[in-house]
Amino acid sequence: MTTKQRMPSKQSTPQLSNPVTVVGLGPMGLALAEALLRRGHPLTVWNRTPEKTDSLVAQGARRAATVAEAVSASPLTVMCLKDYDTLYEVFDPAGEALAGHTLVNLSSGTPNEARTAVSWADEHGLGYLDGVIMVPPPLVGHPDSVFLYSGSQDVFDEHRATLATMGDPRHLGPDPGLAVLYNTALLEMMYTTMNGWLHATALVGSANVSAVEFTELAAGWFMPTVLSPASFIEQAPDLDQAHYPGDLGTMEMNRNALDHVLRTSQEQGVHPDQPRQLKEIVDQAITEGHGGRNYLALFEIFKKATQTQRP
Amino acid sequence: MTTKQRMPSKQSTPQLSNPVTVVGLGPMGLALAEALLRRGHPLTVWNRTPEKTDSLVAQGARRAATVAEAVSASPLTVMCLKDYDTLYEVFDPAGEALAGHTLVNLSSGTPNEARTAVSWADEHGLGYLDGVIMVPPPLVGHPDSVFLYSGSQDVFDEHRATLATMGDPRHLGPDPGLAVLYNTALLEMMYTTMNGWLHATALVGSANVSAVEFTELAAGWFMPTVLSPASFIEQAPDLDQAHYPGDLGTMEMNRNALDHVLRTSQEQGVHPDQPRQLKEIVDQAITEGHGGRNYLALFEIFKKATQTQRP
Ligand SMILES: NC(=O)c1ccc[n+]([C@@H]2O[C@H](COP(=O)([O-])OP(=O)(O)OC[C@H]3O[C@@H](n4cnc5c(N)ncnc54)[C@H](OP(=O)(O)O)[C@@H]3O)[C@@H](O)[C@H]2O)c1
Ligand SMILES: NC(=O)c1ccc[n+]([C@@H]2O[C@H](COP(=O)([O-])OP(=O)(O)OC[C@H]3O[C@@H](n4cnc5c(N)ncnc54)[C@H](OP(=O)(O)O)[C@@H]3O)[C@@H](O)[C@H]2O)c1
Repeated sequence: MTTKQRMPSKQSTPQLSNPVTVVGLGPMGLALAEALLRRGHPLTVWNRTPEKTDSLVAQGARRAATVAEAVSASPLTVMCLKDYDTLYEVFDPAGEALAGHTLVNLSSGTPNEARTAVSWADEHGLGYLDGVIMVPPPLVGHPDSVFLYSGSQDVFDEHRATLATMGDPRHLGPDPGLAVLYNTALLEMMYTTMNGWLHATALVGSANVSAVEFTELAAGWFMPTVLSPASFIEQAPDLDQAHYPGDLGTMEMNRNALDHVLRTSQEQGVHPDQPRQLKEIVDQAITEGHGGRNYLALFEIFKKATQTQRP
Repeated sequence: MTTKQRMPSKQSTPQLSNPVTVVGLGPMGLALAEALLRRGHPLTVWNRTPEKTDSLVAQGARRAATVAEAVSASPLTVMCLKDYDTLYEVFDPAGEALAGHTLVNLSSGTPNEARTAVSWADEHGLGYLDGVIMVPPPLVGHPDSVFLYSGSQDVFDEHRATLATMGDPRHLGPDPGLAVLYNTALLEMMYTTMNGWLHATALVGSANVSAVEFTELAAGWFMPTVLSPASFIEQAPDLDQAHYPGDLGTMEMNRNALDHVLRTSQEQGVHPDQPRQLKEIVDQAITEGHGGRNYLALFEIFKKATQTQRP
């Protein structure tokens, strides 16, 4: 659909900001709605469990009885539901009411799911933009909290000012799958880093070292020194060039170290799966001939869909 | 053994620094030897593959023909070999020559291996200190490069000045297993964080995003914002108090996000094991009743030795 088909914002009573609808009021949807309210957007809200709209209604939001009513109330609807299946479950019943409006979908999902949603929106005459939120709820509304978008540049440009109310909107490109792809990649960095810290804390905890004491060393000194963001930026060109010299430390040396992490986890009676899996992937790298290269050569393994052999 | 039994440093020719022996000249041992040479320590070296001593001999080091000769040459021997098994293989043949000397073992291993090495050293009349190096070879010799030690406080105090030549020596306590325990914990943080970045880069790489482009966003903005060292320090008390409120995001929400990471990895044809395992551990947490708590509740799972069920 083209921009012209979409409902123009009605400016009958003078107002500074465009009306917006938010559908989905989990912890994140609530944070989005509050940020929009704070900046003076006339707000309509809908949630499956209607009680979650109460605090917003007390702050001046309007509760819609149906999704059709919610979408009709504003040119732009921001949706923050559990996933893409929920999108269809919630919006299909709105049927005809969708045409001429625009939906910004901020739920997490997969690239294929995002592309499928674009086709679905097209069929309904609904403008559509896919986006993801890269900060936790308390940071929503801060001007430097990044929201990633991809797909229609037109929809992005038209609603950029409203999107900027929720954070710093960045458009990654025309493929609607890009935002969720970046999202899953960045989330994976978050989860692995969190799990590393949590498991490491459990490991030293088995010798009665407190989380506070260990984290002071681990985050106060180790992370900024050995895991500085700058060091990743420095190493990135090596990945693009498949350049993995082993002269400062080999994959074999790292397998050895990971073997000690695994055996220490077993000795100390903490959960063994994470260290075992770290070692299994390095085993695969060595089997495939990367034993004398440095640790970054693992990138070659991760690029391929071959599962590691589970013993 | 007591301090008195150890060989005093011979000061027949006036010299600023104590003689030191380094055994093991892999990438790390070489860096240690060079740092000691730079600061004027008379240096004796031994390595299984003797050619690796060549560059050091050219800089003034003395090559010992046997380990017995190497240990006899200095009051203090720094060892940096592959592991603890190698320790016995290399030092047992030196027999009687060990008595009255001191060995600082900087190889990686497990807490039990470190404790066993202390008994072995006692039997040989050898002073012993266990330590680990928390920086890569190029940072050895910098005054802020942390080396962790544990075990004998006497040996640590006596050789502190020499140890300081290699980095910033910190003593963690009398249990000789502590240094390797911290080492495995910090290494696990390093490996998980590295793997997160490498796999995430492979994931976006499947859509032809370069490592340099992605890392600019991931390390230039995401890590410092969402994964700042300060945020771990802030969250650490919650682990000590088992305080996991789910009001800003639940374990269920995170399972959902991890499901998207796994399915996206499958869709994009990259290695599926890491995201699968991240999800399996969260599945276990939910099975054990943590579904409504926040992600930190994973700490309760990691503290226990129960493996996750592999489907
Ligand atoms: N929380 C965070 O830290 C965070 C950060 C970044 C991105 N996100 C993303 O934001 C999205 C929302 O997350 P969230 O934390 O707010 O919580 P969530 O638990 O993922 O989603 C809760 C919302 O989905 C609704 N919902 C679930 N199933 C439904 C169904 N079958 N029909 C209708 N509505 C349904 C819930 O309605 P009810 O209230 O009726 O249950 C609620 O509005 C997710 O995609 C998440 O990945 C969250
Ligand atoms: N490189 C790093 O980034 C780094 C960082 C922190 C800690 N470390 C730790 O430092 C230690 C040494 O690491 P590295 O990187 O130098 O390389 P490495 O490959 O772990 O160890 C190489 C050294 O061990 C010797 N060695 C192995 N097996 C032997 C045997 N059976 N008999 C005699 N000598 C044997 C090698 O002798 P040959 O030369 O004859 O093979 C060489 O001197 C490891 O415990 C490692 O975990 C390394």
